[in-house]
Amino acid sequence: NKYQIAVIPGDGIGKEVMEATISVLDELDVDFDYIYGIAGDECNEEHGTPLPQETIDIVRDSDACLFGAAGETAADVIVKIRQEMKMFANLRPVKSYPNTKSLFENVDFMIVRENTEGLYIADQEEETEDGAIAKRVITREAEERIIDYAFQYAKDNNRTKVTAVHKANVLKKTDGLFKKIFYEVGEKYPDIDTEDFYVDATAMYLVTQPQEFQVVVTTNLFGDILSDEGAGLVGGLGLIPSANIGADGALFEPVHGSAPDIAGQQKANPIAMMLSAIMMLRYLGENDAADKFDAAILKVLSEGKTLTGDLGGSATTMEVAQAVKNAL
Amino acid sequence: NKYQIAVIPGDGIGKEVMEATISVLDELDVDFDYIYGIAGDECNEEHGTPLPQETIDIVRDSDACLFGAAGETAADVIVKIRQEMKMFANLRPVKSYPNTKSLFENVDFMIVRENTEGLYIADQEEETEDGAIAKRVITREAEERIIDYAFQYAKDNNRTKVTAVHKANVLKKTDGLFKKIFYEVGEKYPDIDTEDFYVDATAMYLVTQPQEFQVVVTTNLFGDILSDEGAGLVGGLGLIPSANIGADGALFEPVHGSAPDIAGQQKANPIAMMLSAIMMLRYLGENDAADKFDAAILKVLSEGKTLTGDLGGSATTMEVAQAVKNAL
Ligand SMILES: CC(C)[C@H](C(=O)O)[C@@H](O)C(=O)O
Ligand SMILES: CC(C)[C@H](C(=O)O)[C@@H](O)C(=O)O
Repeated sequence: NKYQIAVIPGDGIGKEVMEATISVLDELDVDFDYIYGIAGDECNEEHGTPLPQETIDIVRDSDACLFGAAGETAADVIVKIRQEMKMFANLRPVKSYPNTKSLFENVDFMIVRENTEGLYIADQEEETEDGAIAKRVITREAEERIIDYAFQYAKDNNRTKVTAVHKANVLKKTDGLFKKIFYEVGEKYPDIDTEDFYVDATAMYLVTQPQEFQVVVTTNLFGDILSDEGAGLVGGLGLIPSANIGADGALFEPVHGSAPDIAGQQKANPIAMMLSAIMMLRYLGENDAADKFDAAILKVLSEGKTLTGDLGGSATTMEVAQAVKNAL
Repeated sequence: NKYQIAVIPGDGIGKEVMEATISVLDELDVDFDYIYGIAGDECNEEHGTPLPQETIDIVRDSDACLFGAAGETAADVIVKIRQEMKMFANLRPVKSYPNTKSLFENVDFMIVRENTEGLYIADQEEETEDGAIAKRVITREAEERIIDYAFQYAKDNNRTKVTAVHKANVLKKTDGLFKKIFYEVGEKYPDIDTEDFYVDATAMYLVTQPQEFQVVVTTNLFGDILSDEGAGLVGGLGLIPSANIGADGALFEPVHGSAPDIAGQQKANPIAMMLSAIMMLRYLGENDAADKFDAAILKVLSEGKTLTGDLGGSATTMEVAQAVKNAL
């Protein structure tokens, strides 16, 4: 069984963290064919588009895609792939690891973010006489799908509670519907507890009681904001992976961007990209390889000897990769 | 000079923190006439509306309004007052105090939140065949006004930088306009530095480098979310006041809600309401009284002897008020 993996390193540190991650994947007992695709700012300069059709096709034809980072054109690349490929579920784990700048211990929850609608539909904005208007689109179909995904995720991962996040006191129709669907779907999962919070309150609770969360389900932009807040809580974006999953395919990417300030200097922390690759392994059903890779990263973090600058160390990107390989 | 102050205690702990705060105001060398108004859940039950016209009139006829908290009907009360009274600027200080659960020291910034539009216009939501749509309305007039307010605030308060927060990579038209206006207005204030961040990145930076912020200006819902996150950072909502300011009037309220779980038990921390009253005193130009009140609160917090449960103490709401009066 040889997996076809679409690899899109993209811009800036995307290239470096991808190289580091692939070097570890190559040591695992799983066979991959890598098909490289281009996307992002550089691609835009050279080819006049940040996301050539060819790249989309590579993603479509793959078993899974690894994505590094894109620069200024990130929205045009990643939002478009998510929507074209109907990758409706964006999974963003928030987990505290040892030897990081995490503000808390024992934080471990999953943000399940709706990935196709909300305020993210590009042609739903228009200029008006006195400014502009954006439409926040909420459909029963998409929200039911993501909420069901969140409950199923909880069930499959021995989690006992799902928290819905919305602003139904102000957005009475859109988020009123979201909240209603949440409790409807929840009834299909009697063993899983349900609760719902306003998004503003949640932004506070994440800082005051992050250990209380298990699985959070929310609309697109709220998920974007809360997952970056979660990243800050557990020590920054160098450690946050994500998965974009749909019926037609899946893409795995670190939550961080292309970081032009440190690009090309071997300073980037490859762990977010590696954790994304681990999510990919689990998606492919390669749980043994995933466990092994995961344990190696935990070992490197626990030892605290080979860390990049963002974690207070001075190791290079490839030195971290080497340490992880040694720990396998 | 006697000030007419509209007082709306509202629901739950709103009543208690208001009583505590007024008892301190009464000790200051400023003359107030209090005109009480009703609003909120209880009002709704008794009068069939959470916000009677009479209450709006009381606010309109006052020099300033003190508002406690409303329960389930909060959105219908407070959003309506803000919009009816054109209170376009919502000021939300985030400041670390001693003996609190603040995660950081030396945090001191002001969030200037647009208060009249964005996703907060009630009649801009509609049901559709497959769900619902909300319109995020951004006008040049309102955003120019709030951005200018933020720069003016920075100038008046010896702040050297204003940070704009938006999601212009996705919301290219609405937040693209907001960002453009930000830099246009910034040019009128050459002594003040400018920077802009995406809202997701900001949600992270608030946790990783909150000391870097001085004045943050943003649209309505982002300001709502970020200010609650800020509250979490500095130890919770018991300490976060806010001001709603417009050409026709001003209203001062704690950011916390009516907290039905602890209502009527004298457990509520009155300091957010007191700090709101201090913002009112400054708005009225009563800076000496404001300084005195402020210093008394700081003394009570620094001594750490008379604190409510949220700060790890066991004092009652009125005991905190008494301690503040003693410290005047
Ligand atoms: C680059 C941007 C469009 C994107 C988003 O907002 O979804 C990013 O912030 C993310 O969270 O993956
Ligand atoms: C009660 C609610 C409508 C309100 C808001 O969202 O503005 C509150 O959260 C606030 O921040 O004052």
